[in-house]
Amino acid sequence: MRILISNDDGINAPGINALREALEDMGEVYVVAPDRPKSATGLGITIHKPLRADEVSFEGGKSKGFAVNGTPSDCVKLAIQALLPKLPDIVVSGINLGPNLGTDVLYSGTVSAALEGVINGVPSVAVSLATWDCPEFGYAADFMRKMVKVVYEKGLPDETLLNVNFPLTDCGAKAKKVSITRLGKRRYENSFEKRHDPRGKSYYWMGGEVLDINAEPGTDIAAVKSGEISVTPLLFDVTNAAFMNKVDSWNLDNLL
Amino acid sequence: MRILISNDDGINAPGINALREALEDMGEVYVVAPDRPKSATGLGITIHKPLRADEVSFEGGKSKGFAVNGTPSDCVKLAIQALLPKLPDIVVSGINLGPNLGTDVLYSGTVSAALEGVINGVPSVAVSLATWDCPEFGYAADFMRKMVKVVYEKGLPDETLLNVNFPLTDCGAKAKKVSITRLGKRRYENSFEKRHDPRGKSYYWMGGEVLDINAEPGTDIAAVKSGEISVTPLLFDVTNAAFMNKVDSWNLDNLL
Repeated sequence: MRILISNDDGINAPGINALREALEDMGEVYVVAPDRPKSATGLGITIHKPLRADEVSFEGGKSKGFAVNGTPSDCVKLAIQALLPKLPDIVVSGINLGPNLGTDVLYSGTVSAALEGVINGVPSVAVSLATWDCPEFGYAADFMRKMVKVVYEKGLPDETLLNVNFPLTDCGAKAKKVSITRLGKRRYENSFEKRHDPRGKSYYWMGGEVLDINAEPGTDIAAVKSGEISVTPLLFDVTNAAFMNKVDSWNLDNLL
Repeated sequence: MRILISNDDGINAPGINALREALEDMGEVYVVAPDRPKSATGLGITIHKPLRADEVSFEGGKSKGFAVNGTPSDCVKLAIQALLPKLPDIVVSGINLGPNLGTDVLYSGTVSAALEGVINGVPSVAVSLATWDCPEFGYAADFMRKMVKVVYEKGLPDETLLNVNFPLTDCGAKAKKVSITRLGKRRYENSFEKRHDPRGKSYYWMGGEVLDINAEPGTDIAAVKSGEISVTPLLFDVTNAAFMNKVDSWNLDNLL
């Protein structure tokens, strides 16, 4: 099995190292990840400046690594189209420190690295630890070792990735259940804090409190809150087919 | 009507100016856009550095403008949550110079600005001119003036935006038809060109030739190629609901 690992916390993050260590003896493992943290970059790519890919080695590890001065999407694209000798069998992105739930997946660099895999025709999985307090990646990494094998054997449909979030358990506690979920909906309130610099000029920090608009049972948000591992299949075929007829009935030809 | 205009080519791009001029007398118009070109940023947002919003005035125009040192998504988020006195009735993003078709919409800053509108509960439209040769925005702007009125009156469903592409007509020619389309699929071949700097170190430029994997009749790609205006409703509720049962049958609980 040829495995490509990436993330958005950067190639030196503990989460990606735990994942590499867990998957390393399963096959040919490549780690191609940003040279620094690149959270919330969405599916951004770098087209106006050149990309560098510096080889990295891992102490005691046999995986091949590259640190790239770009986004998670750049990393996976470059890996698949230029760095790897052959198409990988699976892309695994993570383990992210912090949740990637609900609407946030659209902004997530972790999910975008997996989406880039999917766009290139490779089954892909994004993995996040839904906590910042207890960054113990070992447990999630062990689970992913088993899950990668299942995904490799079962396969995924076109344009689909799996988004996995490990729950907010007490430090050290383990989840007792895996839930297959749909995305919830979250929004941020009071997202911007306005401040003034020493010259009196205003600037804004993005932040805000998360507001779970839809955290009903069955959503990824609810599962993680209940201490379950959430697995959400995401499909990036985003045409709203059901609404096409309605727009058709507007007779936009009349505007010509 | 309160209209928020943004884009990814930057606040000084001819496309956004044409749009502003066309919409200016329809209501209260705000232009909040990146201070420089920000193509292919996806739904990237800026969380690790502060954002500035510098007021901009337009010669002979009555719209209020802000140039922001961020992504298209930052601009719309900041506009809605901090700069505008009230929620806009509609977000219009564009007019982009160059197509936003098929898979490319996932990377598009133009579409992401509209998506940010949708995430904030505002009906939103993204507009692109599917050519680089004849950047004549007047015709598209005129059409959008009429279309914005229709969208405002008819409304859009939750999490849905409209993605509009004007066709590759001969310079000056006008489209004779508006087609309601679904997204095609495109990929880039030979995306990376490897070069060496004067010190012999390698670097990569992203580029490549577009490969239309699905440009069947009914897709946005086909419509634009046939000289039609393409209107695609996009829904960013990306759960693959149909695949949930299948993943459930994998009994991932057994991996615990």
